[in-house]
Amino acid sequence: MLKHFDFKDFDFQYKDCNRSDLREEFGMIQRRAHELGIPILIVIDGWESAGKGYVISDLVREVDHKYTRVHLFGEADECEQKKPYLWRFWMASPARGEMSVFDHSYYFNVMDDFQLDKKTEQGYLKDIETLERQLTEDGTVIIKFFLNISQKTQRKRTEEYQIDKFKKVLVTERDRRQVQYHDEYEEHLNKILNATDFPTSPWNIIPSESMRTASLEVLGRTIEVLKSQILDRMDRLKPQEKVEITLPKGNHPLDKVNYSKKLSQEEYEEAKTKLESQMIELGYELHDKKIPTVIVFEGVDAAGKGGAIKRLTKGFDPRGYNVVPISAPSQTELSYHYMWRFWKELPDKGDITIFDRSWYGRVLVERVEEFAKEEEWKRAYGEINEMERIFCESGIFLLKFFLTIDAAEQLERFQARMLNIEKSYKLTEEDWRNREKWDLYTKAYNDMLSWTNKEDAPWILVPGNDKYYARIKVMEEVLERGRAFIKKREETRL
Amino acid sequence: MLKHFDFKDFDFQYKDCNRSDLREEFGMIQRRAHELGIPILIVIDGWESAGKGYVISDLVREVDHKYTRVHLFGEADECEQKKPYLWRFWMASPARGEMSVFDHSYYFNVMDDFQLDKKTEQGYLKDIETLERQLTEDGTVIIKFFLNISQKTQRKRTEEYQIDKFKKVLVTERDRRQVQYHDEYEEHLNKILNATDFPTSPWNIIPSESMRTASLEVLGRTIEVLKSQILDRMDRLKPQEKVEITLPKGNHPLDKVNYSKKLSQEEYEEAKTKLESQMIELGYELHDKKIPTVIVFEGVDAAGKGGAIKRLTKGFDPRGYNVVPISAPSQTELSYHYMWRFWKELPDKGDITIFDRSWYGRVLVERVEEFAKEEEWKRAYGEINEMERIFCESGIFLLKFFLTIDAAEQLERFQARMLNIEKSYKLTEEDWRNREKWDLYTKAYNDMLSWTNKEDAPWILVPGNDKYYARIKVMEEVLERGRAFIKKREETRL
Repeated sequence: MLKHFDFKDFDFQYKDCNRSDLREEFGMIQRRAHELGIPILIVIDGWESAGKGYVISDLVREVDHKYTRVHLFGEADECEQKKPYLWRFWMASPARGEMSVFDHSYYFNVMDDFQLDKKTEQGYLKDIETLERQLTEDGTVIIKFFLNISQKTQRKRTEEYQIDKFKKVLVTERDRRQVQYHDEYEEHLNKILNATDFPTSPWNIIPSESMRTASLEVLGRTIEVLKSQILDRMDRLKPQEKVEITLPKGNHPLDKVNYSKKLSQEEYEEAKTKLESQMIELGYELHDKKIPTVIVFEGVDAAGKGGAIKRLTKGFDPRGYNVVPISAPSQTELSYHYMWRFWKELPDKGDITIFDRSWYGRVLVERVEEFAKEEEWKRAYGEINEMERIFCESGIFLLKFFLTIDAAEQLERFQARMLNIEKSYKLTEEDWRNREKWDLYTKAYNDMLSWTNKEDAPWILVPGNDKYYARIKVMEEVLERGRAFIKKREETRL
Repeated sequence: MLKHFDFKDFDFQYKDCNRSDLREEFGMIQRRAHELGIPILIVIDGWESAGKGYVISDLVREVDHKYTRVHLFGEADECEQKKPYLWRFWMASPARGEMSVFDHSYYFNVMDDFQLDKKTEQGYLKDIETLERQLTEDGTVIIKFFLNISQKTQRKRTEEYQIDKFKKVLVTERDRRQVQYHDEYEEHLNKILNATDFPTSPWNIIPSESMRTASLEVLGRTIEVLKSQILDRMDRLKPQEKVEITLPKGNHPLDKVNYSKKLSQEEYEEAKTKLESQMIELGYELHDKKIPTVIVFEGVDAAGKGGAIKRLTKGFDPRGYNVVPISAPSQTELSYHYMWRFWKELPDKGDITIFDRSWYGRVLVERVEEFAKEEEWKRAYGEINEMERIFCESGIFLLKFFLTIDAAEQLERFQARMLNIEKSYKLTEEDWRNREKWDLYTKAYNDMLSWTNKEDAPWILVPGNDKYYARIKVMEEVLERGRAFIKKREETRL
């Protein structure tokens, strides 16, 4: 896209427009998009000194600042480095009705280094593809611009800025590197742009020899895309054929659970004491090796998630872990992609986050209670698999427990809770309603266990009819898998 | 408090209690506090290796993790250093019904360095006093523990941990320093503890030669304090005498505004062009010198805040500023101290945050519309002055603009908006209702302008009947005061 780029006869479509008119039109169309709840993500990338700042200034001049945030991305700082690479971009993604403008973006790392090894580069590109697709499928309009300038222009600007009292802060090692290795960069950027020119989020390559003309073109094209997106959405409100998502045939992992497993109190106490000290060691080791740990607990109501979590955390230093209870999303959370609130809670390197319920709510409660549309929860299996892949590839130690009891045991526990005043707060109307939907939930559990069971992130099924057995089982699994994870990680590093 | 401390005959009140019983009782009382919406802040500080981790583990064992967060504070990391010192503690403060446990705390910096100069130390102590008082007055229960051990015990533990495969990560330079300079530290810590032993947030000095006994004591005392706080709140629900907050006599700054100031379009265009390039320079300079800038806009409805902000930001790089519109707080925001959401939005060093309305809502709309209780808005003048003092002392360049128009001009603008379809979204029912309360608002404005006008953070009154004049005036003031701020800062540094 950059090679043999036609700077001379580029077809500028908006170069004769009046700048104020375009800005005001954009302001108007942005307000309309806000009313319609459309999230807008505008990526302004390009060569160093290509005029990104200039273009963004123009772009946001007449927009409503209430719904606009401009984000400048460069090297990740200390605290961002504690999270997976995509974390800060998820955090800055626009809510419904809002607009985020990214100066540089999640393309920064992959564009900045022309000597990236093949594997790292492919990793970045895959993550970016996933991010853009997930946001687009959720309704975000992504508009991407790459400001293109010739080597000559870049050199000239860099030299001019360097001797300017104020602009000199704008010139960094990066500018000089790009000027010096122009051909290598052109080759590299060209490859990246081609690889990420997706149908629903294509690149607009804009020559920026004149920043003013480039800016008009960015304004004009942004307006055009937004207008067509708004009309397109109107169109989609009309009745139309439903897109059918077909999922493979699922298994019934829950059918195979052996609920008779048991431990005596004596066996329990003995195992507990032995495992606890080992857990403490594991906790220190994970911390010491700066491994971020995510432990997910899902399960049938009253299966004993709470007790298992409490027992488990007894072995961890309370300063190193957080239990994140997941219930219905707040208004703010609802205004983002449903994954946003889980990304938000990811642990720093060396810390442990325990999710008491999780993103799987999308394919469980949201599916059964019909809070999510069919196409949404069906799409979620893939989305979740992708998200967990990104977690694992970023170095997170991920464990997923599913605690289960049979219907008779659940009834017994509900009844016991009804009669115990101290535990009655644990039982709500909703629990009884969910019980009536036992079969629907069982189907949802089985589908989830079938379709989101992966080598890196397998489901660990724990029969919970006997609490002693379940708690010890959870500790044993954490220990065993934790040690295996550390071992494998050390081996890979050698 | 530490000197001649009686380790031998210390009066432990809970040493014979059953640990599980205490933990469970604490769990129960915490749930009750949650139901009553009481925010709880527990500070666990003390000598290094005194057993803070052990005590916290015990403390949170049986609590509901849904409402509990444990925060470990040490040196501020890179991103925390971009904010005022108290920022991370405000961010970690508990919401209503929640509990935060601080391992170390905002006492970290002042306790950690026994060679602090007098002035810095006094600065820390003043800030801490303000923080604890503001949180307490807002209903937070603060319970502070200092775990005390002898030099001998500290040395022994440090040596033991150092050779332990896992615990060695717990031993830092800080431990060794405390062992080496024990007497100096004792002197220093003693002074800090005495200076911060406030009536509503006193210190509990607990000997921790045996961590187990210390832990029982912390549990027991925490339960005791919470119980009495809960009963105390019940008590306060009974009708009782109102505490009268008396405020000094206010002036009427608005009476003196000269609304006749005007610029011709020609004068406006000329001034605008001249000032704009100077604004760009100022923006770069503030960024270059890593000065965080906060610009507050308040004003009469339709006085032209939006236009003035738009004109002003035209001179700034959009990647360096954020406009934060303040409207009614969200549910989440409501669950914190009302200042929390403003602390949250503070700019990093080198960035600019423009508040379109601000924390002054407390003494304006919340006062007039009676969203805040009388004692709350009356207390707010002092709280705001303290918060702004802390902002300024932390190096923030703070500017406060008040845009005003007279009643006749407002009526004219409202009518114009009614008739202009493009601007009609700017006018709501609420605007008309506010207009009916013109006198009440004027009184609130005058009181605010009188009582929150300080040398470091003065109000800049801008008559807005003529939009040209107002916009230029705002730019001129930002320029002039910005330059003066930079100059003064350089002089102080020499």
